[in-house]
Amino acid sequence: MDPSERFANISPLDHRYYAANRELFERLSLYVSETAAVRYAVRVEAALLSEHVQRLLPDWSGDLDEIASVHERVSPVDVATEEEKTRHNVRAIVNVLQAHLPGDVRHLIHLGATSVDILDTAAAMRYRDVTREVLVPLLADLLEALISRAEGQAETEQIGRTHGQFAVPITVGFALAEYVARLGDCLERIHRGTEDLRGKISGAVGSYNATSVLYRDPEEFERAVLSRLSLLPGEHATQIVAPEPLLRLLLEFNTAFGVIANLADDLRNLQRSEIGEFREFFAPGQVGSSTMPHKRNPWNAEHVKSLWKAFAPRAMTWFMDQISEHQRDLSNSASARFIADYVAGFAAAVARMLSIVRKLDVDTERIERNLSEGSRMVLAEPMYIVLAAAGHVDAHERVRRLTLEAERTGVPLIEVARRKSDTWREIRDACESLTGLDADVFFADPRNYTGRAADRARKICERGRERLRNLRRK
Amino acid sequence: MDPSERFANISPLDHRYYAANRELFERLSLYVSETAAVRYAVRVEAALLSEHVQRLLPDWSGDLDEIASVHERVSPVDVATEEEKTRHNVRAIVNVLQAHLPGDVRHLIHLGATSVDILDTAAAMRYRDVTREVLVPLLADLLEALISRAEGQAETEQIGRTHGQFAVPITVGFALAEYVARLGDCLERIHRGTEDLRGKISGAVGSYNATSVLYRDPEEFERAVLSRLSLLPGEHATQIVAPEPLLRLLLEFNTAFGVIANLADDLRNLQRSEIGEFREFFAPGQVGSSTMPHKRNPWNAEHVKSLWKAFAPRAMTWFMDQISEHQRDLSNSASARFIADYVAGFAAAVARMLSIVRKLDVDTERIERNLSEGSRMVLAEPMYIVLAAAGHVDAHERVRRLTLEAERTGVPLIEVARRKSDTWREIRDACESLTGLDADVFFADPRNYTGRAADRARKICERGRERLRNLRRK
Amino acid sequence: MDPSERFANISPLDHRYYAANRELFERLSLYVSETAAVRYAVRVEAALLSEHVQRLLPDWSGDLDEIASVHERVSPVDVATEEEKTRHNVRAIVNVLQAHLPGDVRHLIHLGATSVDILDTAAAMRYRDVTREVLVPLLADLLEALISRAEGQAETEQIGRTHGQFAVPITVGFALAEYVARLGDCLERIHRGTEDLRGKISGAVGSYNATSVLYRDPEEFERAVLSRLSLLPGEHATQIVAPEPLLRLLLEFNTAFGVIANLADDLRNLQRSEIGEFREFFAPGQVGSSTMPHKRNPWNAEHVKSLWKAFAPRAMTWFMDQISEHQRDLSNSASARFIADYVAGFAAAVARMLSIVRKLDVDTERIERNLSEGSRMVLAEPMYIVLAAAGHVDAHERVRRLTLEAERTGVPLIEVARRKSDTWREIRDACESLTGLDADVFFADPRNYTGRAADRARKICERGRERLRNLRRK
Amino acid sequence: MDPSERFANISPLDHRYYAANRELFERLSLYVSETAAVRYAVRVEAALLSEHVQRLLPDWSGDLDEIASVHERVSPVDVATEEEKTRHNVRAIVNVLQAHLPGDVRHLIHLGATSVDILDTAAAMRYRDVTREVLVPLLADLLEALISRAEGQAETEQIGRTHGQFAVPITVGFALAEYVARLGDCLERIHRGTEDLRGKISGAVGSYNATSVLYRDPEEFERAVLSRLSLLPGEHATQIVAPEPLLRLLLEFNTAFGVIANLADDLRNLQRSEIGEFREFFAPGQVGSSTMPHKRNPWNAEHVKSLWKAFAPRAMTWFMDQISEHQRDLSNSASARFIADYVAGFAAAVARMLSIVRKLDVDTERIERNLSEGSRMVLAEPMYIVLAAAGHVDAHERVRRLTLEAERTGVPLIEVARRKSDTWREIRDACESLTGLDADVFFADPRNYTGRAADRARKICERGRERLRNLRRK
Repeated sequence: MDPSERFANISPLDHRYYAANRELFERLSLYVSETAAVRYAVRVEAALLSEHVQRLLPDWSGDLDEIASVHERVSPVDVATEEEKTRHNVRAIVNVLQAHLPGDVRHLIHLGATSVDILDTAAAMRYRDVTREVLVPLLADLLEALISRAEGQAETEQIGRTHGQFAVPITVGFALAEYVARLGDCLERIHRGTEDLRGKISGAVGSYNATSVLYRDPEEFERAVLSRLSLLPGEHATQIVAPEPLLRLLLEFNTAFGVIANLADDLRNLQRSEIGEFREFFAPGQVGSSTMPHKRNPWNAEHVKSLWKAFAPRAMTWFMDQISEHQRDLSNSASARFIADYVAGFAAAVARMLSIVRKLDVDTERIERNLSEGSRMVLAEPMYIVLAAAGHVDAHERVRRLTLEAERTGVPLIEVARRKSDTWREIRDACESLTGLDADVFFADPRNYTGRAADRARKICERGRERLRNLRRK
Repeated sequence: MDPSERFANISPLDHRYYAANRELFERLSLYVSETAAVRYAVRVEAALLSEHVQRLLPDWSGDLDEIASVHERVSPVDVATEEEKTRHNVRAIVNVLQAHLPGDVRHLIHLGATSVDILDTAAAMRYRDVTREVLVPLLADLLEALISRAEGQAETEQIGRTHGQFAVPITVGFALAEYVARLGDCLERIHRGTEDLRGKISGAVGSYNATSVLYRDPEEFERAVLSRLSLLPGEHATQIVAPEPLLRLLLEFNTAFGVIANLADDLRNLQRSEIGEFREFFAPGQVGSSTMPHKRNPWNAEHVKSLWKAFAPRAMTWFMDQISEHQRDLSNSASARFIADYVAGFAAAVARMLSIVRKLDVDTERIERNLSEGSRMVLAEPMYIVLAAAGHVDAHERVRRLTLEAERTGVPLIEVARRKSDTWREIRDACESLTGLDADVFFADPRNYTGRAADRARKICERGRERLRNLRRK
Repeated sequence: MDPSERFANISPLDHRYYAANRELFERLSLYVSETAAVRYAVRVEAALLSEHVQRLLPDWSGDLDEIASVHERVSPVDVATEEEKTRHNVRAIVNVLQAHLPGDVRHLIHLGATSVDILDTAAAMRYRDVTREVLVPLLADLLEALISRAEGQAETEQIGRTHGQFAVPITVGFALAEYVARLGDCLERIHRGTEDLRGKISGAVGSYNATSVLYRDPEEFERAVLSRLSLLPGEHATQIVAPEPLLRLLLEFNTAFGVIANLADDLRNLQRSEIGEFREFFAPGQVGSSTMPHKRNPWNAEHVKSLWKAFAPRAMTWFMDQISEHQRDLSNSASARFIADYVAGFAAAVARMLSIVRKLDVDTERIERNLSEGSRMVLAEPMYIVLAAAGHVDAHERVRRLTLEAERTGVPLIEVARRKSDTWREIRDACESLTGLDADVFFADPRNYTGRAADRARKICERGRERLRNLRRK
Repeated sequence: MDPSERFANISPLDHRYYAANRELFERLSLYVSETAAVRYAVRVEAALLSEHVQRLLPDWSGDLDEIASVHERVSPVDVATEEEKTRHNVRAIVNVLQAHLPGDVRHLIHLGATSVDILDTAAAMRYRDVTREVLVPLLADLLEALISRAEGQAETEQIGRTHGQFAVPITVGFALAEYVARLGDCLERIHRGTEDLRGKISGAVGSYNATSVLYRDPEEFERAVLSRLSLLPGEHATQIVAPEPLLRLLLEFNTAFGVIANLADDLRNLQRSEIGEFREFFAPGQVGSSTMPHKRNPWNAEHVKSLWKAFAPRAMTWFMDQISEHQRDLSNSASARFIADYVAGFAAAVARMLSIVRKLDVDTERIERNLSEGSRMVLAEPMYIVLAAAGHVDAHERVRRLTLEAERTGVPLIEVARRKSDTWREIRDACESLTGLDADVFFADPRNYTGRAADRARKICERGRERLRNLRRK
């Protein structure tokens, strides 16, 4: 396409984000463009026709492969031209198809099917294929990149934060392992969700009226057609396939999108000037601001969050599209076409996050500095824990008061505690009996108090790698 | 509660819909009120304390049952009063709890846990229990009522409608079986979703910092505490349990809600004055309109649709609540409390739909009249099918022209066809060779063309009954 | 663009709906494509530069028109190429711009502005212009078409329906006038909303830091630049223009979209086989169903409803985009680009509705038949009214019982009433004294009971025409 | 209400947030509870009846005040009891009303009205009154608190942040003035929005069928009834008042809610441990964490954000409720009742934000420290500005390279610049000629580069105070 014409497109997906994700979007286009919609519909028609020919024209001497490959010969432009006449999408496909198939089977094209048999079955295939061929591999790459990062930083102590406040220490790997676990779970479910997608060849209102005229067991006929496309029929259909299987797959996309948006927010915040623990890759010639030459913005993480805001609310459309009156109304037709946009928007966000994670700079010096800054206060918890475990009911309140004093005076908590000799003696006794460590040593360094963070990070990453192996075996 | 004070409440859930669903809402209140929130939190504290006592005070001579039953002795009013002082919900619970437990274990209360350990674990229990004890049985009753209806009307021929237009015939049972299948699927998944809910006892940032001080294997300790509550820990936790398991359960509620809203719309439309196939139960003294004495409105189905509009968009809140910065921020706290409202709104809609389906009047006379009205045209499909199967490539176009003539002249399609003797001969031959039936007989009555509708209705109902048996065994 | 490449696009807006709305989408593209984004940004840069040149280089001998027209010479492809290097959108524009402008002013390009000054100001212009030049005229055409229809059918009596049930009579024009009023109101507000859009030239964080170095009164300088673009500055800006003025305009679009979706639903329902009062235009060669040759579906109205479902939920994105941290974060950048999609989706829906309304077939025979069908019952209201006005407290209950009897026996209400001679006498006396009409005449024909329907229809249409005149004067 | 029963309520609005906002919620309850719904409906019935009595019974000797005050005598409990019989809300009100009014006017109660005339008119009054009496004053208090804060800190220099990165300096007052401007605009529009709310007394389908029987000019009659309630009729009504005026008011609430959520996010972030510029009030006995005694969390700001997430998505319900089939369906009835919840949730958020702003601690020492930390880099912008203004086309690129060197070496930008003597000479010359200041002085202190921040803060606050005066005059 002439690039200047591309920029006359309306959706940013078809100019700006296409340009930023050319290779990815070209792969997506194989499944979710109008061209793909036509090609897949033709593949369903071909499967239906092949089955008819084998059953109704057992002596037919033609080449079944000619039928099976017809989608390679049909052009979406011809279909569009024909549709201007019929004003009916599938009837246009059927008409165009006739010109590409032998005369002696033409009367069997589309026979017994309603348009939606073709379109919904094709949609199930398209969303199954784009998920398995593009989205799952992309998400798997992201998962793998996260695992590498989390493993690499499994032991790097970091201050844990709740409410944006210093809490108690963790490790960088433990923090990243959160996303390994949450995303790994989504990834598995997304793959599994493609198996629930369903096709149908049960006619105008789903009760096999037309195919009952043609075959004794029209349900068996439906299974035969669909098995050519590696699909199963649903438990019930009206004119349309029941919307829930696709809905659930999309909801799982949106769930994964939420996890990635959460990661984006964490990364954005950890790049704040005052925190500075992470930094996105910045190319040497790259400009951060058109007027502030010093700026290095976390613009990729911001971009991912922004895509999430653009796409997450579309879930409401999917829920509304569950409602189709009686044996169906068409009010889910245009809206469902925009699933293509959602898939592309989601893919763009995953790809961007993958590139962030792969190239992310970790500033271990700042991480240490922040942890050490926090160390003036964050060991209040173990102080309370050892005192309480030693039998002091008022342990929390006592330590809380020490922290108030530490805050008021600016003196580190351990110093404040040490100055109260009775209290400090109790703490020392309790600490030693519980941990076997000297309180002066234990409370001097927050790195003594990271619990199981490093170990958990490694375990979760192992589980993530196992998930990847299972998926890639499929 | 004094009824007049109830009406001073703000949410319709706590006055109008409480009044309309008193017995149901009292059951819900056991799980999703503030009282329930406190009671369940205390149950988690009790499990934690029991485990501590057994491990840290092996020689303790007290009564573990006194700990286990403490939730029966704690009043939410006392907690609220204490919270005014602490301004911290769980600290208030802990303080109140101390007064209800023996002095020699008090120091172990809450030890090693962070507030969210208690609250998220309690929430997992509450939503698990309300789902299993209230929602699943209610949905099962609705499924059963739908099955009875669908079986009872499995053979009642009805005109199928697509785009609100007469399409081809089905049966009433087949139309209802759609909802048996879709809702049955949701019901199974909702039950399964409760099994994925997770608890946690891993402390302030999820890395077992505090319990690592107390126990060699804090993960084993966590499992032991949670197993007292029939829960498992998640793969990873920060300060909070990963949001996705509960999110998925809620999304499946919303999916089931969409199915029910679709049914409500179908029922509303089939009650239109011009259609009149169904009618909601109307009590003898009931008033349809304050000014039009003749009105009998489908107000219950309208009510269900309206509840769906009120609650379905709340899914967006759940997606936004996936995002919690770093090891958590609190911005999902207030919003998550409103899950209680959602559960109640959803339950109210299911209960209303159950009552509609149970008491629904089916007007078989109107159903027959509408089908017969449709019969002037709706057999165009089999006419095209038999002609096409017999080798006529232009079958669709030929029959389409017949329908145009039928429409223009007002003459029934079969008559128009009969008048074209060549065409009619071809149709007769094709019809006989395919169906073994005489075209004059076949095309005279749309009831000959219901495909597998009745049979499918029965099969789907059987599957539905099996689902019910499986669920009720659990 | 080569049509086959167009079909490789991802968004249906850029293939399917482009093809269906070619002329409209080409006009939209002038304002909301990437090309337009670049052109408008350049126009803002040119205004800024012109102002600098006049103030800082008063003796400059160059041609200001060369600056003013520079947007005609900048290609979005060049900008995209440059952006691959700078990875910064506006810096790329600035770099490209330099090649198109005289050397002695180049140092003043973009001076004092931050990128968002350019982008937000350009966005305000683009959305102002696309609204005034495309959306408002399109909506005005729709309003005019509705007015013509409503005026033409102002007197055509029709059964009014509430809850889908026969209520009391109205006229077709009155029913359509609803949309004349609601849409007319939206249209006015949409136009007014464009006047609230704001630009900014206040620099990196909105406090005129850079321009304060250049000019004594940087606020006056900002006003001068913006007045070249017919814009005003806002009351406050950070790095970005306050989001609310654009948000409100978009919300008013969505409000108008809701009105149109309501109209689409009304039209869909009135085309049901059992109602048949309206019918969409159907081309002679058009196919309604690929398998049911007789089908004529209300697919255009369904399409409009479907577009509404696709786009209305995007309002949630706009609300989320109100939140930008501190002096701004970038997380509203990608999401705001999709406003282009919304504008196109909304325009496509309006255009489709315009075509429906213009070509809508009104079946007055069916309208009469439905009204007459309703007449067996719908005069229950005036019966109650005259009785009550005559002093009967129990009028509603008495007439309600008559309607129950009428329903049970199938006898028209007037006959049931007549058979109760006492009641009928009271009704007659009351009717005559109130209306001056004989009850036997009045209650025989529902057309006697349309209230002010015809008159209201005409009045509302007059108001609508006045609105159109006012708008077109602007 | 017995507090323990309150805690059995389901919605957090009716237990937890009631308890936290007792005085506020009791005021809200006067307008948005079920009791209020009944009382206001009775007020509409009373206005209608009074008008009938004056016109139809000109010689009536009773006391019109007895009618006007009847809402004080009707109990919502009695209405609920009656509704169990009629299953019709308004008919129940009418029946109960009869017992409280003189026998000789009872037949005129509700005459000519349909239920929705009463309910929609009452709703317009209730939302008008709760907005003017509760929400507007509350928002005005918040605006005033913001103004005080912004004025008080108008001159306090602060580092400006974009993308979470140090940008260029502003003042604290300028940052807060953003919210003064945005919220002030919303507040004005909210007040104005109440003036657009409309009532109706036009009967079953909005065409004055019934009142046409009673009065020659039923539109004049409607105006007379509504004027007793200080309302106007809409341009058109069906059975219901057009939904758009209330929709727009609610959307403006949601817009204001978004502004407040943005402020909450700013405050949350500025309270991060690493930033620490603001701190929420913390009571002496307050507990920040049940296990980390040192925690002081920004939980109030988090709470406001969380309420926004709970309520903002409900806008989708309002948009869906625009659609009502034909002359109305009831599917907006239950959903519209939850506007009460929204109003309460919004009010709770505003009240919480008011309390945050009033008691907010500003840590000027940290603000200074952060600004000074930023000073190593943030004067890159003016360096580029002065160079560019002096004619250097490559100014941005040159300064960008200086910042890269500064970053790489850790040397402050000014030092890096000074070391390049040619560059520094150019900067000095340019600086002096533009600003009249010595570059060594100017670039030594970021406080020299706050532009118009302080002045803008004061101006915007003045405008805010003027808005408050105007509002309070009303």
